[in-house]
Amino acid sequence: MNSSPAADTPAPPDFADVANAAARLAPHAVETPLLDCPALDATTGGRVLVKAEMLQRTGSFKFRGAFNRISRIDDAKRTRGVVAFSSGNHAQAVAAVAQLFGVPATIVMPADAPRMKAEATRGYGAEVVFYDRAGESREEIAGRLCAEKGATLIPPFDDPLIMAGQGTVGLEIARQAGARGLVPDAVLVPVSGGGLIGGTAIAIKETFPAAQMWAVEPRGFDDTARSLASGRRETNPASTGSFCDALLVTSPGRLTFQVNSRLLTGGLTVSDAEVAGAMGFAFRHLKLVVEPGGAVALAAVLTGKLDCRGRTVVVVCSGGNVDPAVFCQAICAAS
Amino acid sequence: MNSSPAADTPAPPDFADVANAAARLAPHAVETPLLDCPALDATTGGRVLVKAEMLQRTGSFKFRGAFNRISRIDDAKRTRGVVAFSSGNHAQAVAAVAQLFGVPATIVMPADAPRMKAEATRGYGAEVVFYDRAGESREEIAGRLCAEKGATLIPPFDDPLIMAGQGTVGLEIARQAGARGLVPDAVLVPVSGGGLIGGTAIAIKETFPAAQMWAVEPRGFDDTARSLASGRRETNPASTGSFCDALLVTSPGRLTFQVNSRLLTGGLTVSDAEVAGAMGFAFRHLKLVVEPGGAVALAAVLTGKLDCRGRTVVVVCSGGNVDPAVFCQAICAAS
Repeated sequence: MNSSPAADTPAPPDFADVANAAARLAPHAVETPLLDCPALDATTGGRVLVKAEMLQRTGSFKFRGAFNRISRIDDAKRTRGVVAFSSGNHAQAVAAVAQLFGVPATIVMPADAPRMKAEATRGYGAEVVFYDRAGESREEIAGRLCAEKGATLIPPFDDPLIMAGQGTVGLEIARQAGARGLVPDAVLVPVSGGGLIGGTAIAIKETFPAAQMWAVEPRGFDDTARSLASGRRETNPASTGSFCDALLVTSPGRLTFQVNSRLLTGGLTVSDAEVAGAMGFAFRHLKLVVEPGGAVALAAVLTGKLDCRGRTVVVVCSGGNVDPAVFCQAICAAS
Repeated sequence: MNSSPAADTPAPPDFADVANAAARLAPHAVETPLLDCPALDATTGGRVLVKAEMLQRTGSFKFRGAFNRISRIDDAKRTRGVVAFSSGNHAQAVAAVAQLFGVPATIVMPADAPRMKAEATRGYGAEVVFYDRAGESREEIAGRLCAEKGATLIPPFDDPLIMAGQGTVGLEIARQAGARGLVPDAVLVPVSGGGLIGGTAIAIKETFPAAQMWAVEPRGFDDTARSLASGRRETNPASTGSFCDALLVTSPGRLTFQVNSRLLTGGLTVSDAEVAGAMGFAFRHLKLVVEPGGAVALAAVLTGKLDCRGRTVVVVCSGGNVDPAVFCQAICAAS
């Protein structure tokens, strides 16, 4: 396995890699439910199911990829620890997996990361190193830490094992939908670097080749939507300016875009106000805590960005790690 | 079927009644997940699973009993409508089921019921009649409305079909635990009139006769705990004074106590502050919205009222209908 961030792009994962990840994850990850939501059906006019990844260990899907990646490091190397850079969900996941394996973790986080995410990362025993999102390079800081410690960098998305791990979300959706005799017409997934939707698309397309796969992003951070349209990796003009803190990556990964340009139908964008509305809807009607970045796909169906009438649609809610104050502002504004 | 509130107590339901209710509910109710919660295991030292009834249609378990009861009224009689008195969750459930059947519903609610519950009840098309909890009798008001309209009273708990419907929660727990090879040592259930725990105990004991069944109540509203201890139906001194609005019934039902005095292990009580702490824990670690009354069993395990170390324990979280302001106060206080 290749752990250097500067290495050439390896081959993308295939369905067998996702199935292997699922077998490895089975004793450790939560099989999150695919929820029936009559209130959502009534609002959208379709059959809309929610894949509730906020119920995953560490509060987001990121546990899946981190576990799959870290479990493959050879024992001697793993003992020297792991390093990651992350705005929060990958941070918590890497920290929690390192704790399970009993190895040290160092996480490079932006100084403006949500308090809850930084505290939870420390709570899993990791050392947190903050950096300035505007002026410093997290890649450089992480690279230096790896060199100093002999530790392994766990990349957030652009890695075949990370993508395969996240793809177990799609594997579960396919199995859970199939068990109820449902054929998804469309699957909507929150997108930042593209690892979750890439892995999920590989798994979904294996069982449901006709299912549409939609990337959903915050307005102003629609690099994947624009890249899908232009056929090349586009970059966002800004790196701050949305409260969807988990989705502020500036451009798609090389490996993820290689998969996503082939398998995705297109991109949809939502405003922060629409996301807050979706968080309020989830609070009032679904009784789920969804963080801003985790709620973009839900926001897209609630605001009709995709017409769900008469269709079977799966919405991935990818995480629920949100500070109480941010959550309360969103749900009270939406009331 | 007997629909008069003044009638003699009928026979309690048995396991076959719960199984019949499950068959009737299958096309309409959500099979709510029994969730693995590693964060809860880490905190309690046990294997603690959450039955997430806030994910049920209308946001609480009450849909189950209401559907089972209303579906058995003969068609001609049902056309004349249904009446219920409820602080909110039974209200929403009866309103939603009446809407499914296309019949009118009138709900008698206390003037201090949570705004969200009253609005949601109206949202399902019901007429809401408010009463003063201190000075008026909801039973009298409901009885008068039934007489005027020829409508059927849907009692909140003291009815064999209501109990059998709520018991489908226990049937699902037994099946879901069994599918994972788990044998619950204890099941903790929020208790008001006792319909949910009574029906659940009937179902759980069929498969797991050695499982302990614990009633959990708010401090000052522990009529079931005291009744189990004394062997007769005790009454609470007050009808207000806890924010667990769903659990303020003053004494156990006749029928529910007949079942519960035979099947329950005992009662546990928790303070409002402990409940707020559990709501905050659920927000931070479980990513679930739990209302105060729905969180008492979770509060009991988090505060060590039942020692979970080394045991397999199921906690029922019975509802998630809570005003944003109340929820935000609880989760911010707990942070």
